[in-house]
Amino acid sequence: MALTEADLARIAAAVDEDRLWRMHMEMAKFGATAKGGVCRECLTDEDNQARKLLIQWAHELRCTVAVDAIGNMFIRRPGTDPDAVPVATGSHLDSQPTGGKFDGAFGVLAGIEMLHALDAAEITTTRPVEVINFTNEEGGRFQPGVMGSQVYTRPEELERMLSAVGADGVILRDALAAFRAMAGPMEDRALNLPYAGFVEAHIEQAPMLEETGNTIGVVTGIQGSRKYQVTVTGEEAHSGTMPMRRRKDAVLAASTMVVGLHRMMEDPADLTRFNVGRFQAYPGAPSVVPGQVRFAIDFRCPDDALREGLGGQIAGLCQALAGPCDVQVDEIQRSETTPFDPGVMAMIRKAASRADAPSMDLLSGAGHDARNMTKLCPTGMVFVPCKDGVSHNEAESATAADLAAGARVVAQVVAEMAG
Amino acid sequence: MALTEADLARIAAAVDEDRLWRMHMEMAKFGATAKGGVCRECLTDEDNQARKLLIQWAHELRCTVAVDAIGNMFIRRPGTDPDAVPVATGSHLDSQPTGGKFDGAFGVLAGIEMLHALDAAEITTTRPVEVINFTNEEGGRFQPGVMGSQVYTRPEELERMLSAVGADGVILRDALAAFRAMAGPMEDRALNLPYAGFVEAHIEQAPMLEETGNTIGVVTGIQGSRKYQVTVTGEEAHSGTMPMRRRKDAVLAASTMVVGLHRMMEDPADLTRFNVGRFQAYPGAPSVVPGQVRFAIDFRCPDDALREGLGGQIAGLCQALAGPCDVQVDEIQRSETTPFDPGVMAMIRKAASRADAPSMDLLSGAGHDARNMTKLCPTGMVFVPCKDGVSHNEAESATAADLAAGARVVAQVVAEMAG
Repeated sequence: MALTEADLARIAAAVDEDRLWRMHMEMAKFGATAKGGVCRECLTDEDNQARKLLIQWAHELRCTVAVDAIGNMFIRRPGTDPDAVPVATGSHLDSQPTGGKFDGAFGVLAGIEMLHALDAAEITTTRPVEVINFTNEEGGRFQPGVMGSQVYTRPEELERMLSAVGADGVILRDALAAFRAMAGPMEDRALNLPYAGFVEAHIEQAPMLEETGNTIGVVTGIQGSRKYQVTVTGEEAHSGTMPMRRRKDAVLAASTMVVGLHRMMEDPADLTRFNVGRFQAYPGAPSVVPGQVRFAIDFRCPDDALREGLGGQIAGLCQALAGPCDVQVDEIQRSETTPFDPGVMAMIRKAASRADAPSMDLLSGAGHDARNMTKLCPTGMVFVPCKDGVSHNEAESATAADLAAGARVVAQVVAEMAG
Repeated sequence: MALTEADLARIAAAVDEDRLWRMHMEMAKFGATAKGGVCRECLTDEDNQARKLLIQWAHELRCTVAVDAIGNMFIRRPGTDPDAVPVATGSHLDSQPTGGKFDGAFGVLAGIEMLHALDAAEITTTRPVEVINFTNEEGGRFQPGVMGSQVYTRPEELERMLSAVGADGVILRDALAAFRAMAGPMEDRALNLPYAGFVEAHIEQAPMLEETGNTIGVVTGIQGSRKYQVTVTGEEAHSGTMPMRRRKDAVLAASTMVVGLHRMMEDPADLTRFNVGRFQAYPGAPSVVPGQVRFAIDFRCPDDALREGLGGQIAGLCQALAGPCDVQVDEIQRSETTPFDPGVMAMIRKAASRADAPSMDLLSGAGHDARNMTKLCPTGMVFVPCKDGVSHNEAESATAADLAAGARVVAQVVAEMAG
């Protein structure tokens, strides 16, 4: 049964900005850092305490909590048709080691606030509505990231992921058992069960909304990326004696490549995201002409043709700029741009409008659990501004009003899909 | 009593190329590596075995062996005047961890060959003649390098140097005691005793002699150097989301500096030696825009005005190329160009001529023990070619004929100074 425009407006109005903010501040106590951020890595004590509070809140809302084989948590508000495929929202409570209060947490807490709003507006949906807390989105302690949604949508990955060894030597399987023991009995959930729709709220992690004065980002998709490892090989020599013209200086050659690549990637339309974040020189002695440099390229761009074209020129440009050194360029990872569902995007746009929140379409530069959920069901994402676009940083900041606007959009979209 | 031209010619003729080569090959067994090089770090078992063989050879030549408080070894052939201040040659038997057969060893073995030649030519000198094996020239296991000659000429440094802790955790004082225990009783030598002259033979570690077809390098001095630590500070950000124009990318800024500095240092006269051998990016994650880079500059140049001028521009150029990042440039070490004694240089030139070895003046790009000995007495250095100028490398190579030519020059110059 479709909800009316009046129902959706009532749901939006029932979202409580103060309650949502208080939930953020309560969650941020788990792993709080001196600089005002959060260190709450996957399945640590801090993460488990956050998960336990989430369970308590779910029970206060008279919802059930289920957990699957990789530790994803599913908080369910029943619908009128117990056989109907559910609709979900959610994100992740784990953080980077020097993370902020909002990355991930917002998507889960917006879901909890949605449950409150549905209750307050006395809405009954046909389909069950769920809030998901995905395991290990950040990929800090255990690799890879977006692990929970990956296993949920590709159960064949389960065994490999359970064997992941943390940076602290703990095996994920054991960390998960410790969480289960601490949390007490919970319903088990099978992997890969279908959904009728999924929407994830998240801070933008970029400054577009802030710069344009918009409150809601209608995320059109997640941009594709190509990752490369570049190895520049020169020749070690005595830095005080070897004449400059005889040197094969790997740092000079690699620096020339970094500068040249950035120049090639310059893009007036501001679509490309190009980064050399790792740059290692060997042997690394001040008085030895460096014989080798290894550097990593992370290149993302939403435009498939542009990404193909520019990505394809990286190896050639490195060759051209290698001077007397040798260079090898290996592409180690690539993903295509993942579009979100146009129907969900349209619902997000309308929901923003009902909530009087100015919105714009934009593409996500970062990966999210929603990317994996596109394999299962119509999926979308809602972004809200974060200060200066800063994330993965203890200084991460967002306003209570913007978070509430995001929650209003999520609540309407989920309710509309749940009918 | 001055030796005649005929005496000097007889000494040169008495240098035995085959014997000198055999001594190199015997020494190279201590610490021999699979790649044909030598790993004989200071006061390791390998170095101690090499030192022990040196003592055996000294005794076979009926010379005395003394050792000072830092482990420098002094092999003495008496003169006719027991009160006369001695003349010395020498270098070091320790090597880099991936060093070659000739760096350092040649200067010691040329001295031993000189003792053989003086005996064979039946020369008696007025002054005693010595061959010195300096402790820890390379500065690999224990820091700093050229330690033995530094302590010998600046005894106030002794205690600090004895407390140096090796990369393997061993304290130099203990390593030295182990060598003394293994070597058996030896005469003690006081530090800082005067010399009437010092000459050191060494492979060139650069390709000038090879390129110009000369056999003997008359070393005019050791070039001055300035060393800097550069810290570039940007801002960490998500590499997939932060727009390029908003980034403060420390690797891009530092790479731009490296390229710009190399361009500034370009020198048609080929005097400058400029190196960025250490380049460290933080946090070093492929998907994080790097927030900091620290890199090290080793800048050497024999021309004082040029070194002052170019060195003085380094900080300004880094500032100009920092883009949105901050940069701090700290000069952490500087040394002036050290000239060698013109009288010793003239003797080297004449000795090369007597030995029919084509010679050229050149400056040493690297530091050597001879730099410290200039504080005590008229000092010079004799270079011989090494293949492709390669040193500090297991591939280091020199010919028996060139080594013998160097030994012929050293033997004549020491004999001439010893009278």
